[in-house]
Amino acid sequence: MKFSSFLQERDGWETLSSELHFENAHLAVATEEVRTPGRPEGRRWTTVHRKAAVVVAPISAEGKMVLIRQERIPIRSTIWEVPAGQIDDSAELAQLEIEAIALQELREETGYALGAHGEIVPLGHFFSSAGFTDEHAYFFLARNVELTAEGHAHGGSEVITGCETFTPRQLGTMIANNEIRDANTLSICAKLVARGFLVLYA
Amino acid sequence: MKFSSFLQERDGWETLSSELHFENAHLAVATEEVRTPGRPEGRRWTTVHRKAAVVVAPISAEGKMVLIRQERIPIRSTIWEVPAGQIDDSAELAQLEIEAIALQELREETGYALGAHGEIVPLGHFFSSAGFTDEHAYFFLARNVELTAEGHAHGGSEVITGCETFTPRQLGTMIANNEIRDANTLSICAKLVARGFLVLYA
Repeated sequence: MKFSSFLQERDGWETLSSELHFENAHLAVATEEVRTPGRPEGRRWTTVHRKAAVVVAPISAEGKMVLIRQERIPIRSTIWEVPAGQIDDSAELAQLEIEAIALQELREETGYALGAHGEIVPLGHFFSSAGFTDEHAYFFLARNVELTAEGHAHGGSEVITGCETFTPRQLGTMIANNEIRDANTLSICAKLVARGFLVLYA
Repeated sequence: MKFSSFLQERDGWETLSSELHFENAHLAVATEEVRTPGRPEGRRWTTVHRKAAVVVAPISAEGKMVLIRQERIPIRSTIWEVPAGQIDDSAELAQLEIEAIALQELREETGYALGAHGEIVPLGHFFSSAGFTDEHAYFFLARNVELTAEGHAHGGSEVITGCETFTPRQLGTMIANNEIRDANTLSICAKLVARGFLVLYA
């Protein structure tokens, strides 16, 4: 299991040993002895290693956000969320290649693509659950998206049952009433608000 | 491995079989055959089961948010974030008991508690990474918090290296420049904005 080069070990961080418990195509579970700045003697911690991901906030020229409705097996629920997808070998990729993956996920999951005056804006990254997994995702705003003639191309591993556009007021209401309840969508909304790309209210 | 009663199996969701790969005190990894509304024939999916958690946004009478700086071993980084903690047997707990755990985590991790006119406001829940784990956390706003004479009481399993208060403008800047980059803090900020408890700008 290769430690992602995205996460650098420096400034007092060092993996001293690692015991692999389980690994498949999607995740690897290991208990590692890790030296930290505050615990130079080392500390044992079980981590779930995951691929990196892209999370895209698609906003139309009218200022509406495109969300998909997707079956999420681990939580036994179907939820409204922004499009997202995993990245193979993210450590090897340049920023432009990651942007291309974000646009591909957008197109496959929603059928939308950048329209006239469209642009993709990188918005940093986040960690989904820093206490137990190294999973991280790159945020992108896709501005001025429009529906393509081809439509979506849902893959075999996911069940997407809907795709609609929502005004900022609708988004605010869905967040306030807990209908939007996944970290990807909530976190990219916070980023969009802080960057001045979205005004949220319920 | 008991399936959390928080996640109900109904409306076409049913676990048909489960194979446990690994389990310790913090997580369990299983590949399950799950019937979904869109795949009644069932689908195999590997899920990491985790305890539920509480995530608290502590805001002082002056409108500043209390954040801790914590070493997070899975991401080999020390980050600013809101206080949070896991819950034992969350399915068995009433709302008031979960609120009590949120207040306890607040006090232990920050040394802050509800002050005069203080109140705790439940803000729903979220899922940290719905594609691979059932982990979910209950959001709470703790209003009018103030520093206690006793101060914090950091547990043995965590390394917290700082605790400070931040204005909404500072929070907005830290989100915009990616200094705040964990799902707990970003997601509860989106919820606070949508509920009208926080104005974010950078």
